Amino acid sequence: MAAKITIVKIGGNVIDDNQLLTTFLEKFSPIEGDKILIHGGGKIATQYAEQLGIETQMVNGRRITNDQMLDVVTMVYAGLVNKKMVAQLQALNINAIGICGADGNLIQAKKRVHPEIDFGFVGDIERVNTSLLLHLIDQSLMPVISPITHNTSGNLLNTNADTICSSIALALAKEREVSVVFCFDKLGLLKDIKDESSLIKNIQYKQIKSLVDEKIIVEGMIAKVENIAHLLENHISVVRLCHATHIDEPEMGTTFTS
Amino acid sequence: MAAKITIVKIGGNVIDDNQLLTTFLEKFSPIEGDKILIHGGGKIATQYAEQLGIETQMVNGRRITNDQMLDVVTMVYAGLVNKKMVAQLQALNINAIGICGADGNLIQAKKRVHPEIDFGFVGDIERVNTSLLLHLIDQSLMPVISPITHNTSGNLLNTNADTICSSIALALAKEREVSVVFCFDKLGLLKDIKDESSLIKNIQYKQIKSLVDEKIIVEGMIAKVENIAHLLENHISVVRLCHATHIDEPEMGTTFTS
Repeated sequence: MAAKITIVKIGGNVIDDNQLLTTFLEKFSPIEGDKILIHGGGKIATQYAEQLGIETQMVNGRRITNDQMLDVVTMVYAGLVNKKMVAQLQALNINAIGICGADGNLIQAKKRVHPEIDFGFVGDIERVNTSLLLHLIDQSLMPVISPITHNTSGNLLNTNADTICSSIALALAKEREVSVVFCFDKLGLLKDIKDESSLIKNIQYKQIKSLVDEKIIVEGMIAKVENIAHLLENHISVVRLCHATHIDEPEMGTTFTS
Repeated sequence: MAAKITIVKIGGNVIDDNQLLTTFLEKFSPIEGDKILIHGGGKIATQYAEQLGIETQMVNGRRITNDQMLDVVTMVYAGLVNKKMVAQLQALNINAIGICGADGNLIQAKKRVHPEIDFGFVGDIERVNTSLLLHLIDQSLMPVISPITHNTSGNLLNTNADTICSSIALALAKEREVSVVFCFDKLGLLKDIKDESSLIKNIQYKQIKSLVDEKIIVEGMIAKVENIAHLLENHISVVRLCHATHIDEPEMGTTFTS
């Protein structure tokens, strides 16, 4: 089997914090082997939207995306955040190439249909073009992926970055060994979100449901952990959730196993 | 020699006009052979800057780019404009991939040093990575290039799209036959800018200087035409300047020859 690919999602408040993001990139860049980086947009899109007089509406942690908001997230995610990270990675001698789901037809999605809520231009993923990713990687180019997809009819769609990460991981796992790490601004999965000493170091995905039932995993963490469980149910054996500054320390954070 | 590459720059008010841009893309997409598309940002960056309370200052047609303005042009050029065009091209069955000069280390530049004017984060091109472009093209991916470059030390730089087009054309001309077309919102080079019947259909680059001296070529057109003259002085035999909607009609517009 060909070499392992490390797939890293960076999100949360790390994107908003230049110093933290730089530290992450400095620790991420020396990690050996093939890598793919997927990023969110943090609060920057919300801040720009506010300055532009566009109201931000979130439902279950997902952004309602009308046409004006789609322009803002396209600008912020695929433009500002993506290109700043690429330039910094280039300075760290990583030959990064920043793309979104429309580029090279990387991620086809369809506009979400929901019985009650009109999410607007929000995309649910239909297909990942793994041959594009493998091709870039084989040319020593490191994909940096922003969470914008397209519907193949000319429309861009705002798509959750955690879901993009897991869809890419599942698609690539059919062809290569993959390792998946979700980085954010906490130490990992905490029993008490306010107490960093309550870190759960190891957990099997079958235990996740009971932690949700017991309300130990709450709010925004539910979607994140369910996304990880979905990976473990589908032939990915290990997923790590850790603080962005611990990306280069495999023993840090929470290790989820199947 | 390998097949010809058609390099097209699309700019001016075409970018701002959704209908005109769509017509351009519909006529551009069926053109046979390998293609590269380079775009400017039109007035959209200025409009967003104004809404965000950032003042636009232009000197000799070039945008003074402080750090806030750099963020705006990165968002608008590399994000909004680039990805919208990529999505539309995908719908037209062109496997477009949108990149800026930082991606894959495509265009290295240095911050402009000027004795009197501080242009801010404006880049002058030092090196074009033709192997990346040829590699993408050989994989049937069509590069769509936004006018943002990098200095290889982690900083993005705002760079004139006409200059990017000519730098890419000159670099590729060493390896492949190239054809260069600049598209905008006029019929071509006009003797009288207000009179579309005054189109100059054919011109040798040696005649350009006298047209500038006679003030037939004025203002913003001077830089555009001098950029074309630079190509013809350097082994590119033909350059066309035409209206965006005439991209598929080789006999339309002004043909510049060496």
